[in-house]
Amino acid sequence: MGQVHGANAARTPGLRLRYVVDPRPEAARAMAAATGADPASLEQALTDPDVGGVLVCSSTDQHLDNALQAVAAGKAVFCEKPIDLDLGKVLAAQPRFEGARFLLGFNRRHDPHFRALKRRVDAGAVGALESLHIVNHDPAAPPPHFIPTSGGLFKDFTIHDLDMARWLLGEEPAEVFATASCLVDPEIGRLGDVDTARTVLRTASGRLCVISNTRRSGYGYDQRIEAFGSAGMIAAGNVSRDTVQVLGESGATAAPIARDFPERYAESYRAQIAHFAEVAHGRATPASGYADGVAALALAEACQRSMREGRTISLQETR
Amino acid sequence: MGQVHGANAARTPGLRLRYVVDPRPEAARAMAAATGADPASLEQALTDPDVGGVLVCSSTDQHLDNALQAVAAGKAVFCEKPIDLDLGKVLAAQPRFEGARFLLGFNRRHDPHFRALKRRVDAGAVGALESLHIVNHDPAAPPPHFIPTSGGLFKDFTIHDLDMARWLLGEEPAEVFATASCLVDPEIGRLGDVDTARTVLRTASGRLCVISNTRRSGYGYDQRIEAFGSAGMIAAGNVSRDTVQVLGESGATAAPIARDFPERYAESYRAQIAHFAEVAHGRATPASGYADGVAALALAEACQRSMREGRTISLQETR
Amino acid sequence: MGQVHGANAARTPGLRLRYVVDPRPEAARAMAAATGADPASLEQALTDPDVGGVLVCSSTDQHLDNALQAVAAGKAVFCEKPIDLDLGKVLAAQPRFEGARFLLGFNRRHDPHFRALKRRVDAGAVGALESLHIVNHDPAAPPPHFIPTSGGLFKDFTIHDLDMARWLLGEEPAEVFATASCLVDPEIGRLGDVDTARTVLRTASGRLCVISNTRRSGYGYDQRIEAFGSAGMIAAGNVSRDTVQVLGESGATAAPIARDFPERYAESYRAQIAHFAEVAHGRATPASGYADGVAALALAEACQRSMREGRTISLQETR
Amino acid sequence: MGQVHGANAARTPGLRLRYVVDPRPEAARAMAAATGADPASLEQALTDPDVGGVLVCSSTDQHLDNALQAVAAGKAVFCEKPIDLDLGKVLAAQPRFEGARFLLGFNRRHDPHFRALKRRVDAGAVGALESLHIVNHDPAAPPPHFIPTSGGLFKDFTIHDLDMARWLLGEEPAEVFATASCLVDPEIGRLGDVDTARTVLRTASGRLCVISNTRRSGYGYDQRIEAFGSAGMIAAGNVSRDTVQVLGESGATAAPIARDFPERYAESYRAQIAHFAEVAHGRATPASGYADGVAALALAEACQRSMREGRTISLQETR
Repeated sequence: MGQVHGANAARTPGLRLRYVVDPRPEAARAMAAATGADPASLEQALTDPDVGGVLVCSSTDQHLDNALQAVAAGKAVFCEKPIDLDLGKVLAAQPRFEGARFLLGFNRRHDPHFRALKRRVDAGAVGALESLHIVNHDPAAPPPHFIPTSGGLFKDFTIHDLDMARWLLGEEPAEVFATASCLVDPEIGRLGDVDTARTVLRTASGRLCVISNTRRSGYGYDQRIEAFGSAGMIAAGNVSRDTVQVLGESGATAAPIARDFPERYAESYRAQIAHFAEVAHGRATPASGYADGVAALALAEACQRSMREGRTISLQETR
Repeated sequence: MGQVHGANAARTPGLRLRYVVDPRPEAARAMAAATGADPASLEQALTDPDVGGVLVCSSTDQHLDNALQAVAAGKAVFCEKPIDLDLGKVLAAQPRFEGARFLLGFNRRHDPHFRALKRRVDAGAVGALESLHIVNHDPAAPPPHFIPTSGGLFKDFTIHDLDMARWLLGEEPAEVFATASCLVDPEIGRLGDVDTARTVLRTASGRLCVISNTRRSGYGYDQRIEAFGSAGMIAAGNVSRDTVQVLGESGATAAPIARDFPERYAESYRAQIAHFAEVAHGRATPASGYADGVAALALAEACQRSMREGRTISLQETR
Repeated sequence: MGQVHGANAARTPGLRLRYVVDPRPEAARAMAAATGADPASLEQALTDPDVGGVLVCSSTDQHLDNALQAVAAGKAVFCEKPIDLDLGKVLAAQPRFEGARFLLGFNRRHDPHFRALKRRVDAGAVGALESLHIVNHDPAAPPPHFIPTSGGLFKDFTIHDLDMARWLLGEEPAEVFATASCLVDPEIGRLGDVDTARTVLRTASGRLCVISNTRRSGYGYDQRIEAFGSAGMIAAGNVSRDTVQVLGESGATAAPIARDFPERYAESYRAQIAHFAEVAHGRATPASGYADGVAALALAEACQRSMREGRTISLQETR
Repeated sequence: MGQVHGANAARTPGLRLRYVVDPRPEAARAMAAATGADPASLEQALTDPDVGGVLVCSSTDQHLDNALQAVAAGKAVFCEKPIDLDLGKVLAAQPRFEGARFLLGFNRRHDPHFRALKRRVDAGAVGALESLHIVNHDPAAPPPHFIPTSGGLFKDFTIHDLDMARWLLGEEPAEVFATASCLVDPEIGRLGDVDTARTVLRTASGRLCVISNTRRSGYGYDQRIEAFGSAGMIAAGNVSRDTVQVLGESGATAAPIARDFPERYAESYRAQIAHFAEVAHGRATPASGYADGVAALALAEACQRSMREGRTISLQETR
């Protein structure tokens, strides 16, 4: 993700990419060269008074430490999700982020299609919101070696949808139910994870949200949201690779949907960094902050527990 | 068409199919048995005072004679299009249809999709109407032996679109241009006809209409209309055989469009006969009458002449 | 439903509607007149040796008794769903239906869109089937007085989806989870029922199925199925009222989806009765039999229990 | 267009924008500052041996002179269309472009949707190509003062479609018919131009192409191509602003189509400049050259003449 965010930062008006910090010197030099930045150590970067903000795109287990150092140095921080896989650690560090300009990398909040959907839901296009259906299907399963440090399907993957649910519902989920299978790759199962899941959230007022996840769709990167309300429904559909359609005797064929997240969410990543420029310059409140990371992680833990125990988990139980 | 209309008449509330007149006794008996009617001669049917209306579905060269006899007998008449292939004959007979309850079989005026389009155009959904695009592509070319008595592409096939154009434009075409090729079946060309054509109509006020025709689409029965106005456009699209869509790695596939006119226009044929019931009972004015047949035929002749002469034909020239 | 099925029977080749049995003499006479049948008592109808089959469309609490009598009289039986709301009674009566020609009214198995979907799933269009998403949203809530005798949302409404799930999954659900709210009409809640639900089924091999239900969509009768497999997905979408689309400055507008079940499923009801003709004549095995009614009802009971207890219910627990 | 092409050149790998030549010093300085280039005179730029190529984006009446100077200086040339409005001048200058690396700005040849369509047509997706339908509707009419120097609808606007037709047909049009009206803005008519046109092209082998043009659609920038062949049809549809759809009681609403050419064709402009980089470096043959400009202009003149004379114009007549 550092490649994506760095390149976007280098092109964003109002931002200048000054340093590239990477423990692998070669990688640091290559990226620095490509973006007009300098390779540097984290200390160098954080002590440079001209540096206003930091993009934390390290490995997941470094996110929290890096972010803490940057915040301590008074920098605005963009941090890739998740903050950390350990909810206890994340909760313990929370006080130190108070008042910080901290943007968490829930990029889907910046996707133009989902933003258009939210704008219309908030404007009452479907009346009172009653339920959501979120589809998040990855095109192809990750290599097995990725699984052990991933945090598992719910913390690594579903967490995006849990954040979307919170963002759209306008009310915190009060109960969680999740069930899952290992249908895609038995190796994932041997490593203790699942690859196909359905999650149901319920808010105190009774709003419902279903999340559909699989690690391998077989047809591209399926990213859809449907919202149902008292006066109708609204849906954000998939993005096709082109608009071409062929009609023949046996039917109509059209282009596949977007291949993967770099293709589908390119615009959201650009918009996210442009938003971070605004946050760093003090002109905008972060679209998603530390507390959003805590809440999504707590929901992901509740999903894991629900799956294990075969019952609804109340969010109070996890706090 | 007699089979279709007869079966519909037998099922239409307010109509009873009393007689089947067919020069082939076997065919008459079979259809009579299927619909609860009796085989009869035309004379018998026309002299029965209980008969209120007649469906003329004979061969094209009999339409005008049959219709004239039925009108003379005081019956309401439904007549398949075209009235006749010879504009002179049709014009000569016109006075004898004055005051008659005469419904011409331009079934597309009864199609629910095209009716919905017209209703919205007339309600101003696209502002002031400026132009039309009509697509009428047959799935597969007729057998060559059909060509010599067909009247040619324009009188046999385009005539439906010429009627649609008149119906929707709200103004008579003043000029016609047509060009055509023989691309589908060289045998059609050897018989002096064409199989692929484009026609452009222009009204006195400058409204434009393009008609796209082919005898063989290779993908089903393509029936579409687009109307463009000062405030937008409206389109009636094709009807798919089902709503199923498959997404795979190489794209999306959907069902073919309707196969042919019996499938695509089944509902229009039912609605047309139901309308005839209203006409026969004196409760409705025919949706398309003798004058509409004359006008469409004159346009078809103008198309033929334009194609031959490579120039715009003014409708005054044809009258 | 008697009106719908009776009218279809009267029009189905190979069937003749002989008697109409209705405790309300006026209703019996009216329908008999409209279909060419005679009003009769149940006894009369069942003792007539010319009667080969019976359509049971009485009130739900009469279904089982009527069906039992008809089976005892040696007739083929079509029975509206559900067989009964009481699983115990249904199980107790099951032995008496052994060997009977008994077709249960799960009409969606006859819907051409869902049949096309199933045919392609079975043909391997999406590889190995892994999960389903079934949307069944009613356009508008029933009047409150209907609720007390309805059996509740799961037995009255979800039961159709439970049958679709069984039909498509090719494997029995082993576990059920359901959660629900009363968001549409508080009166439904006061009567002890719910109006908005999400159900998750899981088979022994790990296949998952989500069912989405609401009593009031606000946008028509939303009937969709998505099936996900190892090689892609397949979806049966909604049927629109027409194909007309308007494009203007503020966007595109299209026709609403089908209004309600009589409109959306008209073709399935016709096909169901045509299938019953085949069953009655001994030329086809029922597409859905008594055991399918038992299984769907057991699943609906499991849904109710899961909702009450906030946990996954194993199907063994309900048997 | 200079703004668009200059910004793209500044971002294209393999290109560096060295000079900005603009008779308005302020404009030159502003753009130079934004792109890291220097303001310069044309002479300076053309005599700099480090300059490998020139983007000619001046006013239409300067295109030919500028391009000639750049070619004479041995530079690769990208030239905005049209080369000139006067076919005689363009033909007279043609010999001086022989051997030049000259890319004409028919950007639609670089649009990914139209490229996908052409790729599939060329691969035989619709069998033998028989006819085309090209829709090119501008969102809103230009200000009247633009009309007198525009060259008129056919040379200014239809010319893009004439190039698309040549590109896709794989065969030169042999005959042209055009008819047009002034329906959008009477001021356009007073200035001697038209704003709504239909053009029909016919090749020697009988292939047909219809072009639909209007200066004001009222619903965005309608850019579609349909190609019909012996085995089916292929269509490139409009691009919507987002994928969101709302379903309510009165129907479905979706986002508008792309607003205008900067939005719809942004990707084609980028790809065109990237292609020019390849041309300038001698690694690619221009996708459209001087001869394409000549051919499209000759067709546009034939359109004008056909419209005036109300008849088919053979392309031989114009050469």
